[in-house]
Amino acid sequence: MKNMVTEFYAPMGNLWGLEMKEKLHNEKTEYQHIEMYDTAHFGKVMLIDGCMQLTTYDNFLYHEMMTHPVLFTHPNPLNVAVIGGGDCGTLQQVLLHPDVKTAKQIEIDKRVTELAELYFPELCTSNKDSRAELIFGDGIAWMRAQPASSLDVIIVDSTDPVGPAEGLFNYAFYQSCLKALRPNGLLVQQSESPLFHLELMRSMRSAMHDAGFTQSHTLLYPQPCYPSGWWSCTIAGREGDIKKFREADAEKRSFKTRYYSPAIHRAALANPPFMLK
Amino acid sequence: MKNMVTEFYAPMGNLWGLEMKEKLHNEKTEYQHIEMYDTAHFGKVMLIDGCMQLTTYDNFLYHEMMTHPVLFTHPNPLNVAVIGGGDCGTLQQVLLHPDVKTAKQIEIDKRVTELAELYFPELCTSNKDSRAELIFGDGIAWMRAQPASSLDVIIVDSTDPVGPAEGLFNYAFYQSCLKALRPNGLLVQQSESPLFHLELMRSMRSAMHDAGFTQSHTLLYPQPCYPSGWWSCTIAGREGDIKKFREADAEKRSFKTRYYSPAIHRAALANPPFMLK
Repeated sequence: MKNMVTEFYAPMGNLWGLEMKEKLHNEKTEYQHIEMYDTAHFGKVMLIDGCMQLTTYDNFLYHEMMTHPVLFTHPNPLNVAVIGGGDCGTLQQVLLHPDVKTAKQIEIDKRVTELAELYFPELCTSNKDSRAELIFGDGIAWMRAQPASSLDVIIVDSTDPVGPAEGLFNYAFYQSCLKALRPNGLLVQQSESPLFHLELMRSMRSAMHDAGFTQSHTLLYPQPCYPSGWWSCTIAGREGDIKKFREADAEKRSFKTRYYSPAIHRAALANPPFMLK
Repeated sequence: MKNMVTEFYAPMGNLWGLEMKEKLHNEKTEYQHIEMYDTAHFGKVMLIDGCMQLTTYDNFLYHEMMTHPVLFTHPNPLNVAVIGGGDCGTLQQVLLHPDVKTAKQIEIDKRVTELAELYFPELCTSNKDSRAELIFGDGIAWMRAQPASSLDVIIVDSTDPVGPAEGLFNYAFYQSCLKALRPNGLLVQQSESPLFHLELMRSMRSAMHDAGFTQSHTLLYPQPCYPSGWWSCTIAGREGDIKKFREADAEKRSFKTRYYSPAIHRAALANPPFMLK
């Protein structure tokens, strides 16, 4: 067997691994354990507390789907906040939208971003964009401190709901988000695997509604390096119909995407019968 | 590390594994090496020549998507042939369509079906349906021997295009299929991972067109136990528009599905920009 970097997802007894060329970095930060490897076919991979966060090869799927659907659902997103997202890939996709005026990234662990700048420089090309602001601190506290009605879109691009990210999946955080959003504002959050984590999705969406969001919908997309290879994000809002989006604007977007398109956006909105049950 | 049953997909240096409870069966047949395991969370898993073929837990995704899209695309499928499909899960889904009059399964290796009857009995519940015929033999020769214009739908549910299945991915086989199909007949074939096997898809579709199919389209769906967790099937035909389907019939289908629905069918038709390029 070749030398492998692996992740074992214990609740489903599921192993995933990538053939490794070399270990590039290993560090216990104030918040978590970060590892970086060079792989044989997936480029670089970053692990946090043993969980694969992203690879060079397949991160476009996740980053495009965490950003373009919500930004084309909002009628006119000007002020965007990314909670987490330390690898800067989400921020980069947000800033492809020329109408976005400010994009703030609030990452708790500065080392994630410093390592991304070193090992995923292609994701960090917008970090010095004049519309970008990189803030290092607690996203929960940051959100609580925001002026009411100051944001159009909040993107919660976090690790799994254990450890530092646990507080991003509950009622209190969603209440802060709702207050910080303008009335037509939208929240989007990574919501794990539709196959493995239906119960988490249910409880997230229930907490979103308890906090005052009147609509929520889960979008599906492939993401090989996450457990089951099938992932999701959940959009929540109060106005309009969050299953409708600016299809014409998405069609004539000024930037290139590899996975996102209006057809893929419509496709991602479809939820299979086993989820609807 | 727990005891694992693993598959290493060498071209992408990608390991996938399931926590194992016990090895149930190990056999070298005339055609291939079949292994069967009981897993901790995915039920049973069958491997052929080291490649995972199906698990109890997630085979519904593949089996529903290999059958219902093509059967609801055809205007009136009466006579269906399944090439390969020895686990009988595809045959079972085909026979859920009450209008299907005959469904023949042509599997080269009788041991696959005998082991499926033992370890996946829930997939074999339609094997004794009066419309079903289980034939054990070479699907390529069988197809060549069919009367012209005798089939409505051909489903190629095979292993990867190496070993016994190699001859199912080429011009000569597609020519036999085209001859056996009625003019409005449809062929559907599993076409590997959109992420890992774009070149294979291209060459399949090119061979289909060379053989006389005038239309082909690839549908996408998740399948955790296959490399990349993201899989596809390609439909080919000569009449109508193969991207259109009997949506009303699909909506009021008389049987339960866990993944398939008209919305999921429409979603599966969407191909991302990186595939279209």
